[in-house]
Amino acid sequence: MAYELHYWPGIQGRGEFVRLALEEAGAEYIDVARGAAGMKEGARALMAFMDREDIAHPPFAAPCLEDGDVLIGQTSAILLYLGDRHDLAPKDPVLRIWTHQIQLTIADLVGEVHDAHHPLGGNLYYAEQKAEAARRTANFREKRIPMFLGWLEKILVRNPDGDAYLVGNALSYADLSLFQVVEGLLYAFPRQMERTLAQAPRVAALHRAVAQRPRIQAYLASDRRITFNEDGIFRHYPELDL
Amino acid sequence: MAYELHYWPGIQGRGEFVRLALEEAGAEYIDVARGAAGMKEGARALMAFMDREDIAHPPFAAPCLEDGDVLIGQTSAILLYLGDRHDLAPKDPVLRIWTHQIQLTIADLVGEVHDAHHPLGGNLYYAEQKAEAARRTANFREKRIPMFLGWLEKILVRNPDGDAYLVGNALSYADLSLFQVVEGLLYAFPRQMERTLAQAPRVAALHRAVAQRPRIQAYLASDRRITFNEDGIFRHYPELDL
Repeated sequence: MAYELHYWPGIQGRGEFVRLALEEAGAEYIDVARGAAGMKEGARALMAFMDREDIAHPPFAAPCLEDGDVLIGQTSAILLYLGDRHDLAPKDPVLRIWTHQIQLTIADLVGEVHDAHHPLGGNLYYAEQKAEAARRTANFREKRIPMFLGWLEKILVRNPDGDAYLVGNALSYADLSLFQVVEGLLYAFPRQMERTLAQAPRVAALHRAVAQRPRIQAYLASDRRITFNEDGIFRHYPELDL
Repeated sequence: MAYELHYWPGIQGRGEFVRLALEEAGAEYIDVARGAAGMKEGARALMAFMDREDIAHPPFAAPCLEDGDVLIGQTSAILLYLGDRHDLAPKDPVLRIWTHQIQLTIADLVGEVHDAHHPLGGNLYYAEQKAEAARRTANFREKRIPMFLGWLEKILVRNPDGDAYLVGNALSYADLSLFQVVEGLLYAFPRQMERTLAQAPRVAALHRAVAQRPRIQAYLASDRRITFNEDGIFRHYPELDL
């Protein structure tokens, strides 16, 4: 039975981390809200789904993934689940939780990306908080991005199995998430990222290697891959990328 | 062998979610940075530990937990690990990941608590962003707190095993984390919380029940429990609690 992914239809957002895992696994899945007639319909269907009163484990927010009777919310929990089922995480329990720890830290970075353009909250438009976004983004761009990517570089340097993957000697969902966060940051902050990736050559190489995996390459070229846009988490506002 | 918890010495912060699990489990642990001569020493020791070059799985940030050769960072990953070892999570895999999903959502709430008083970033003092904090906190206080606590209430209503615990019919680390986040919000936003808890009676009851568990009660009365203060995540600024 195909998985059902519930997420906003018009953006990559947090759902994209799940899509990449499903695509790399070659898993069958339905991107439910994108199957609806139009984006507004899809968003409405998603909200109706989240509000259903017969759900025993109601998710707080999208994305969530249905696997038959199982419904899981929270991107990192979904990846923990998919990692076990599709060999996208090591079996060894210490490495399995290390993979999850990396994922949770990437999720923190994603949260900071969002807050950089929405420091006063998601209830206001960017246009209503541009000055505050500029203040928050300066530190995020110059200190936090290099700190997070430097940490990922350090993980690759210290991996006893070599620097091709974050954990062990095989691809995990953490590598897919590294790809996505680098891809998104390259879209949002191309100038800053040119400087940062020059200091993180192993992160840059892993980003390239993931993009060249056959299933990921096919996915990125398909219309299943939504293009980055200014409704999503990774937004390109030139005034924030100095 | 005792666990070693590495966290900032002067605040409850995210480390407190780990401390509560260790205390409820009756586990032996050393709160490493608090063992140092003074708080400055402790903070220095923590930073030196995090920078050690011989750590194969370097944490991005505190807290982290050492269990012999295993070192785990990220609060939610630490709780996943402790939950399995100390019967603080169900064994059933679906309920185990549901517990984790709840924890991750509580962690999101904790992140929003922090950003309410630091919307422009952790690199500036609160005094440098008071106006922005007031703007961000208004929505957080009036919309987000009720939304998160309403979601926890809904989980208790829908739990097929009754409304005494979030998951199944036994205490899990998610219940301990509910206690801590309610306790922190009561400290930071007593006026708002009076209104919110009136709408979430099951959450209020679970908060009280956890506080009365013998080991938690003993812990809260001990000097191991750091008092809330304005260096931590939960801060009481009366101007933000209207």
